[in-house]
Amino acid sequence: MKIITLLTDFGTSDGYVSAMKGVALSACPDACIVDASHDIPPHDIRAGAWALRHYWKLYPPETIHVAVVDPGVGSARRPLLARADGRWLVGPDNGVFSWVFREAQAFQAWSIRPAVKRTEAISATFHGRDIFAFAAGLLACGRAADALTARNITPIQFDWPTPLNTRAGIRGEIVHIDRFGNAISNLNADDLKPLGDRVSISCGQVIIDGLHRCYADAPPGQPIALFESTGLLEIAIREGNAAQKLKIGIGSAVFCQKSK
Amino acid sequence: MKIITLLTDFGTSDGYVSAMKGVALSACPDACIVDASHDIPPHDIRAGAWALRHYWKLYPPETIHVAVVDPGVGSARRPLLARADGRWLVGPDNGVFSWVFREAQAFQAWSIRPAVKRTEAISATFHGRDIFAFAAGLLACGRAADALTARNITPIQFDWPTPLNTRAGIRGEIVHIDRFGNAISNLNADDLKPLGDRVSISCGQVIIDGLHRCYADAPPGQPIALFESTGLLEIAIREGNAAQKLKIGIGSAVFCQKSK
Amino acid sequence: MKIITLLTDFGTSDGYVSAMKGVALSACPDACIVDASHDIPPHDIRAGAWALRHYWKLYPPETIHVAVVDPGVGSARRPLLARADGRWLVGPDNGVFSWVFREAQAFQAWSIRPAVKRTEAISATFHGRDIFAFAAGLLACGRAADALTARNITPIQFDWPTPLNTRAGIRGEIVHIDRFGNAISNLNADDLKPLGDRVSISCGQVIIDGLHRCYADAPPGQPIALFESTGLLEIAIREGNAAQKLKIGIGSAVFCQKSK
Repeated sequence: MKIITLLTDFGTSDGYVSAMKGVALSACPDACIVDASHDIPPHDIRAGAWALRHYWKLYPPETIHVAVVDPGVGSARRPLLARADGRWLVGPDNGVFSWVFREAQAFQAWSIRPAVKRTEAISATFHGRDIFAFAAGLLACGRAADALTARNITPIQFDWPTPLNTRAGIRGEIVHIDRFGNAISNLNADDLKPLGDRVSISCGQVIIDGLHRCYADAPPGQPIALFESTGLLEIAIREGNAAQKLKIGIGSAVFCQKSK
Repeated sequence: MKIITLLTDFGTSDGYVSAMKGVALSACPDACIVDASHDIPPHDIRAGAWALRHYWKLYPPETIHVAVVDPGVGSARRPLLARADGRWLVGPDNGVFSWVFREAQAFQAWSIRPAVKRTEAISATFHGRDIFAFAAGLLACGRAADALTARNITPIQFDWPTPLNTRAGIRGEIVHIDRFGNAISNLNADDLKPLGDRVSISCGQVIIDGLHRCYADAPPGQPIALFESTGLLEIAIREGNAAQKLKIGIGSAVFCQKSK
Repeated sequence: MKIITLLTDFGTSDGYVSAMKGVALSACPDACIVDASHDIPPHDIRAGAWALRHYWKLYPPETIHVAVVDPGVGSARRPLLARADGRWLVGPDNGVFSWVFREAQAFQAWSIRPAVKRTEAISATFHGRDIFAFAAGLLACGRAADALTARNITPIQFDWPTPLNTRAGIRGEIVHIDRFGNAISNLNADDLKPLGDRVSISCGQVIIDGLHRCYADAPPGQPIALFESTGLLEIAIREGNAAQKLKIGIGSAVFCQKSK
């Protein structure tokens, strides 16, 4: 049984997501459809890319990851089918798979053939249903990728900010605020290694001395820094919303120094 | 493997939806349960009907569509089982399947027998669990519709507004605002055919000249009109919320004229 | 095919839930993953316990219920695997299974062995992915509970308020507000039996005379009391939000007397 995951910015109240599921299941009735997320903020391709980063490699090989955050639907942006470390990717070529390509050991990407679309396709505004869910269903039922794709392409990839060495310390920035208000930076343990065991982190108006291992090691209300579940430096407040309370947002600078 | 889709206005935080899934899977452990939506606004039968319209026919034949937006639970409103163009429908007879019946080439509807309910049913307030999920599970596992139903009924169907010819042009109205703020009318391409190739559309305080093919063909911020993914005339703003910015709501009039 | 249900307070927009699904499906590719809820309010263990109460026993025997509302992740709180009336439970030992243990005819609980975790586990903050989803997947694919657990434990259970006999009547309190604004108390029909057939219920500033059988028996806007779908006394307003309109919250007292 082939697994198809779905990520969109559609919400579910309009029936759009269910339309995609119906098309995929009509093409491949025994596919296993898994909801990844339909709560990506509307049109926020980077937020979709971020969510994908958390799960794409954790599924079994041959899983088909569909991601549709697609403000450019109907325009010249290409429909993409790709393979990265044994998983399939289907969606618009607009950067939504940036993190996957960045983290994959190897990948290949193709444009989907114009002929690959539902017979009844009537619209230029819903490729999630008419092309991507349909292509994913065909792929799940054994159609060869060759039969679905036209030619090799170099997919669009976002730049993500790079850590910098500055006089004020190692400079990173916040790249994501999660549902709990945790503010996640682009810095990992390797980036901080030159600073030794004791580090001081400043972000917004807060200065945090030292790293915690988990939320529960801190008293409620105290801003802390820790490495989150994918290894990135995160500013958090135990059982609180750090981004709101500390007025931190995406793009906020994070400076790390040796602790005095 | 039989597919059961679920649409409700329950949200998921209370465990009600999961209760329905448990009942359906207990009746038919190898059913494939698919979430259509649980974010229909509370008690909004028309919004549920609208969402169903987007997907009911896209699933494979024999799919069982359960829809529970049911403010009249426990009252005289009948529990319904229906068949439309090869798909099954299970839910309250309160109009939630209006669009399905309107678009189906053929349908039949029956009331569900009073005896069809969970043995442990203790409540007059949760037929989603005690009757509809249970009936769907039985149906999925091969129970004949005859054994579940009592008699033929004429299901309740909402009236939807009809396009009118007026001196100010062809008059339609907005029937749905989607998650992106797109305002969708009751007018389709056939309705606009008498106006020829170039049309002018007014809605609220905005007048839009001509039709776009997709969002990406317009500059961000510009109000546009286009035919959405099921063929209806829609007022939209690229990567913006048209309903909010243009102060358009359900029921707002839309006038279409020949463009000057 | 083994069923694994998932309940979390993660929302879905960050990809955390999908990461758990990927891990479970990698451990057991033919498991049937069912979303129970991901909209439990952040860190609200009691709300998670309440949602579980609504569905845990409705699934087929051998179902694996995973519940991760886990503010103490990484601390000394134990990872738990339990069996209650033929269903499996996997999650933190922090009270989230309180209602299950309270309602089960029999249960046993064990701590999960420290060795049971993903090989690649890199974090002290995401046991939902690294321990619980992984253990659920192994269990679903036939690994013996003995091989996953270390020793018997007495799981943490919340106290829930007990009905009291007072001079002002039988005193209960509101223990949950649901998505519709219905305010659900800790009182059931047995608690009210001494009052006979006609009861008067006061809660906040409202006094309600008599019980309704279902919402639809009342006119819109009128506060009513009825037994909800699990048998508890509930204050509701037909097609309205009782909690908001009557200013009732969790902990609000409910007094029941013989009606005059």
